[in-house]
Amino acid sequence: MEKDISQAVISRLPRYLRYLGDLKDQGIERISSQELSELMKVTASQIRQDLNNFGGFGQQGYGYNVDNLYSEIGKILGLDHSYNLIIIGAGNLGKALGNYMNFEKRGFILKGMFDANEALHGQKVRNAEIMPMDRLASFIRENNIDIAVLTIPKTGALEYVDVLVENGIKAIWNFAHVDLNVPQGIEVENVHLSDSLMKLSYNIARSAETKAE
Amino acid sequence: MEKDISQAVISRLPRYLRYLGDLKDQGIERISSQELSELMKVTASQIRQDLNNFGGFGQQGYGYNVDNLYSEIGKILGLDHSYNLIIIGAGNLGKALGNYMNFEKRGFILKGMFDANEALHGQKVRNAEIMPMDRLASFIRENNIDIAVLTIPKTGALEYVDVLVENGIKAIWNFAHVDLNVPQGIEVENVHLSDSLMKLSYNIARSAETKAE
Repeated sequence: MEKDISQAVISRLPRYLRYLGDLKDQGIERISSQELSELMKVTASQIRQDLNNFGGFGQQGYGYNVDNLYSEIGKILGLDHSYNLIIIGAGNLGKALGNYMNFEKRGFILKGMFDANEALHGQKVRNAEIMPMDRLASFIRENNIDIAVLTIPKTGALEYVDVLVENGIKAIWNFAHVDLNVPQGIEVENVHLSDSLMKLSYNIARSAETKAE
Repeated sequence: MEKDISQAVISRLPRYLRYLGDLKDQGIERISSQELSELMKVTASQIRQDLNNFGGFGQQGYGYNVDNLYSEIGKILGLDHSYNLIIIGAGNLGKALGNYMNFEKRGFILKGMFDANEALHGQKVRNAEIMPMDRLASFIRENNIDIAVLTIPKTGALEYVDVLVENGIKAIWNFAHVDLNVPQGIEVENVHLSDSLMKLSYNIARSAETKAE
């Protein structure tokens, strides 16, 4: 059933989940596509179209059951599983991600952290120990690690990507400023922060031009 | 001339810049669209189309001059200006961004950091002091701050967004897990890390399904 859903729709699902989570927290039990549309500032027809991809959970004259829609979207996003996760790079960014408790709530379980810096070894980020890089391969295998988060510089990322793949990592959440080559079947999600900042500077520059005209 | 460039093309420009920067660092002076295509794993025709949006910097039989193309794309992205930047939230994520020297090289100058936590006040991240929130408004005005980076939780982000706008911020780089309402003319670039992680879990779950079939 979910075969042909475009990545564009998938990209929008976490945002639906976020709004539905907020509604849930406020104790709201149901919402019409019109109300959700006003809240999220997208058209009601887009909402209906997006959610129809999954069989459509709305009922005529009732709208959407918030709880139900929340948990269905969660399932579609794979959040009914839990994932074992390691973070490679225990600098500020690695620690920020490691400390972000909400990931744990969504089923992303931090199992360990790795860093080349000896001074950090043995320290803990929540329950996860910071370990030396030479323990990486065996740790992945012994702890069934699903996801590796890369917060190390580009050269390090390129150096360790093969170790990750060879030892059974399923997915890489890549913050290193480089595109990774991985075999098919390994999922990569890039967060290139500089790229995002440049989009911002483009839009500032363009907006200034428009005003000057 | 740059009026009708789609955000999709704009989104790809930082990646071109990244590859061209690497080529520059390697001392490579020119490159054909074919070679760039192999390197970047996009079609040569896409490259030509994208770059034609800006008048096309290639020459028949020569290819692209790396230096020239790098600096032209930089200009398009507004990187020939410099931007004054503050970071609101001096936790791990704020510090990670503040310490990222490459931003400075691109013209994003960290002027100050803000946090509600008194224990942090007076500390420095590189040259930028961590200040209390009540100095935010005057600091923005007195230092001509262009960009505010939000690395605080959602409630804080919603609380301070008006202060930013009223005091002349041009753009917000938003890491808070919430959509911001800002007046037209204020640029917002969102980095919703959870959304990105959920896309990853969706792709893992889908990939596992495919294998099970």
